[in-house]
Amino acid sequence: MTLPALQQAPFTWGVRVYWEDTDAGGIVFYANYLKFFERARTEWLRALGIEQQRLRDEVGGMFVVTQPQLQYHRPARLDDLLLVTARVVEAGRASMTIEQTALLKPQQGDGPAELLCSGTIRIGWVDDRFLRPQRIPSAVMAALKLPG
Amino acid sequence: MTLPALQQAPFTWGVRVYWEDTDAGGIVFYANYLKFFERARTEWLRALGIEQQRLRDEVGGMFVVTQPQLQYHRPARLDDLLLVTARVVEAGRASMTIEQTALLKPQQGDGPAELLCSGTIRIGWVDDRFLRPQRIPSAVMAALKLPG
Amino acid sequence: MTLPALQQAPFTWGVRVYWEDTDAGGIVFYANYLKFFERARTEWLRALGIEQQRLRDEVGGMFVVTQPQLQYHRPARLDDLLLVTARVVEAGRASMTIEQTALLKPQQGDGPAELLCSGTIRIGWVDDRFLRPQRIPSAVMAALKLPG
Amino acid sequence: MTLPALQQAPFTWGVRVYWEDTDAGGIVFYANYLKFFERARTEWLRALGIEQQRLRDEVGGMFVVTQPQLQYHRPARLDDLLLVTARVVEAGRASMTIEQTALLKPQQGDGPAELLCSGTIRIGWVDDRFLRPQRIPSAVMAALKLPG
Repeated sequence: MTLPALQQAPFTWGVRVYWEDTDAGGIVFYANYLKFFERARTEWLRALGIEQQRLRDEVGGMFVVTQPQLQYHRPARLDDLLLVTARVVEAGRASMTIEQTALLKPQQGDGPAELLCSGTIRIGWVDDRFLRPQRIPSAVMAALKLPG
Repeated sequence: MTLPALQQAPFTWGVRVYWEDTDAGGIVFYANYLKFFERARTEWLRALGIEQQRLRDEVGGMFVVTQPQLQYHRPARLDDLLLVTARVVEAGRASMTIEQTALLKPQQGDGPAELLCSGTIRIGWVDDRFLRPQRIPSAVMAALKLPG
Repeated sequence: MTLPALQQAPFTWGVRVYWEDTDAGGIVFYANYLKFFERARTEWLRALGIEQQRLRDEVGGMFVVTQPQLQYHRPARLDDLLLVTARVVEAGRASMTIEQTALLKPQQGDGPAELLCSGTIRIGWVDDRFLRPQRIPSAVMAALKLPG
Repeated sequence: MTLPALQQAPFTWGVRVYWEDTDAGGIVFYANYLKFFERARTEWLRALGIEQQRLRDEVGGMFVVTQPQLQYHRPARLDDLLLVTARVVEAGRASMTIEQTALLKPQQGDGPAELLCSGTIRIGWVDDRFLRPQRIPSAVMAALKLPG
């Protein structure tokens, strides 16, 4: 099911850049945006009442990332504060696609936030023992206001 | 100079455990506590008005970790919220020792926070070109209320 | 320029899975395949006589990843030995696209290697000061047997 | 039991520095030496016939790091090749202490290897379900030629 863009304003989560996130190019190591995007997805679910560890204990399943696609636009540096967004753009029974961006929060609070990285993350629900695709739990679908 | 324990109540910073922080043992990968401790030190300096990137641009120097010593007490797991503390316990002209702990924030808000990891991190100030020891900038010493 | 598939057999580099690479799902954390792919690209260049740090010192530039696209097929676990491949599939003056895979090396040395992760990594050459796109150095193009 | 220094020449494992290992200081991020040390310990056990995942499947236990102490002497940079050593310096029934160093391999193959980082890593054996201290499996003690 492709979702109308209007359905959801994106969830936004702040991520600060620390030494651990940078590389010898003086900028955020590109692979770390996958971590930043994951933090935002996790906090988005948490804001909707879904804790992944508890859900795993209860239903024996978890989300796994199956297809990430990223595009880097501008670099981020130490001490930068990023705004990371997430919203569902496509959802099926066992998987969904999340559109995500990382923006540079303006220092003074005014002006537009620069786009640093954008992408789509396809995730699927699997049982946590054999990692086989399973139907996404209805509690998750309901929290995301998706038809489950 | 050894500082009286009373001088400073420890700074505390919240750190959430994400997938990226865990390992196949089901717990937080031990090396990541060094990252958590660094985040707390960075936010502590920021709370005191010191941004490391700006300071580096201005004075051409930075802190480097010279001697970490850690002790693990109990494991942390996915979704746990940690409270990470930092306080100076010894300070010289070019280096200082920070005592740090990671505590598990109680889920219900009551009860004591369990100690997960404790340690001391010795850091030194170096010029950012040749990484040679330098006197810690007086702005940093003043912010930390240390005699500089 | 799109390159004929025949032009290059893929370079292959072995990557062992350590605790640091795994997550609480008991498998390799998906973001780490970007690291594994980078290691293979680095060793491929090294095998062709190109050291990135030396090149950066000499010409003041470096490769940056601009667009990674990954697809995960099967998980890897602690102690697994992966075979990571890299080959150029498209090359321009300032950027190129590398096709990469991670395969599970069979334990007994026989049987086919299972595909774990595949993807394309688009990289661009930038000056290391302002990170602006530049023409890929001719030494790199020559080493890769690409028309420069 | 404190072991005589003569008992074991240290095991040595090569570790190459990649972009992922560096930070915006232009050097290897200090926390990553814990990863390098772990890789050397893992390969040392593997060279002695011990695979940690298989051992865990068979006996339901694993090593955990309980007390790392590190000292940084000189920085490493992108493309450097490190020699990481490991040897037992103290062993009990449920834990042991490993002395480890990271040395910079000389580029020309001659001259002494510079010391970059040294430390001791105390590790303990735990059951993998409740993480409670257990006696180190006799197979591990025998492989390490320690009285078990």
